[in-house]
Amino acid sequence: MSEDKKTRLFEKDLDKITETLTQMGGMVEKAILTSILALKNRDTRLAKEVIRDDAEIDQKEIDIDQRCIQYIALQQPKAGDLRFVTSAMKINNDLERMGDYAESIARQALFLSKKPAWRPLVNIPLMADIATSMVRDCLNAFVRRDTQIAYDVIQRDEEVDKMQSKVYKNLLNDMLQDKNNIERASALILVSSKLERIADQSTNICEEVIYLVTGENVRHRENITLEDSSS
Amino acid sequence: MSEDKKTRLFEKDLDKITETLTQMGGMVEKAILTSILALKNRDTRLAKEVIRDDAEIDQKEIDIDQRCIQYIALQQPKAGDLRFVTSAMKINNDLERMGDYAESIARQALFLSKKPAWRPLVNIPLMADIATSMVRDCLNAFVRRDTQIAYDVIQRDEEVDKMQSKVYKNLLNDMLQDKNNIERASALILVSSKLERIADQSTNICEEVIYLVTGENVRHRENITLEDSSS
Repeated sequence: MSEDKKTRLFEKDLDKITETLTQMGGMVEKAILTSILALKNRDTRLAKEVIRDDAEIDQKEIDIDQRCIQYIALQQPKAGDLRFVTSAMKINNDLERMGDYAESIARQALFLSKKPAWRPLVNIPLMADIATSMVRDCLNAFVRRDTQIAYDVIQRDEEVDKMQSKVYKNLLNDMLQDKNNIERASALILVSSKLERIADQSTNICEEVIYLVTGENVRHRENITLEDSSS
Repeated sequence: MSEDKKTRLFEKDLDKITETLTQMGGMVEKAILTSILALKNRDTRLAKEVIRDDAEIDQKEIDIDQRCIQYIALQQPKAGDLRFVTSAMKINNDLERMGDYAESIARQALFLSKKPAWRPLVNIPLMADIATSMVRDCLNAFVRRDTQIAYDVIQRDEEVDKMQSKVYKNLLNDMLQDKNNIERASALILVSSKLERIADQSTNICEEVIYLVTGENVRHRENITLEDSSS
């Protein structure tokens, strides 16, 4: 490795990792919102944009991953910083998955754009709004090491679960009322299940943040049994 | 920390991490198979067992995570070993998610056990068999650093995608034919989508293994566009 490259590697410190991860979060947030916009407006151009741009999110994940490993190898951080950087790696992984979910939603949007238009989606864009706010805030919580924000995000997860349950029941009803709705409603069930996973993963990140800051393990709370059929 | 504890920590080396991760893989594999058995046999006892045992998988994840961080902090591994242990952390995270999917399937099994019995599931247990073989083999690939096994698993992912697409179409047909099928078919669509995610995550692990061994990035191949409506 050239001296020049070595120097550049050493410049990549925790702040840079945090900054890059925040950029990654922004990309994922945009992907989710755009996929839902594509769905709402039956906009195939937007849907294809999300599918195409997912490759950039994937590349970003690999870059952040390498940056983190280089940081550990070169700086040999101790307890707190080491925990921080391994958390960053996990969050990075989670964000990449969320990007995949956005891509899945965009594919459903493409599929649905070929079908006749249907009634307004209402609850699904609402779910998406909460889910993207959770993505944004879980990164805020991480960057600021702020458990208050983290707990706030975790609470919003329950809201999303309840909405998901409602969306699921409504879509079942739509199918029962008219079999012409079956194909579209099934696609939307999958969309809402991806949004629910995005909210779930944001919650996981917040639980990771709380553990990072307080050492307290609040991960893996019991799920609400009522939501059986929709999760 | 006592001297005794310190000594014990140092004993926990890469082999131990690998061993624990393999145990974790076994637990997840069992959870998936049991959740499908619960679904097939309408066995609520088995379903509840999976839901209850998920807490053990969650605990195992935390243990492995801590073990990996302690290893890095105490041994300060260089390039290869460091990459190996951070890969282990990612795989650990992936396995925990797969455990969540198994729990989701078990919850659907519980839900479906309250509904009238239906036709045999056929393709879903078949998908589950392939998906669990992928979980087992992606860990084999990691432990042995064997890219041949890894590529083999990645190929099976396409098989699962095709089956998922078929299952989805069959379930849509069931719903179209008789609206009494709608609730049960929708639950099964969610089950098959979890199995597809399990296969996906096993593929991610294999791509990680190939990267670990060869430095070649085969991650994030293009998805098959035909599967739009079922992914």
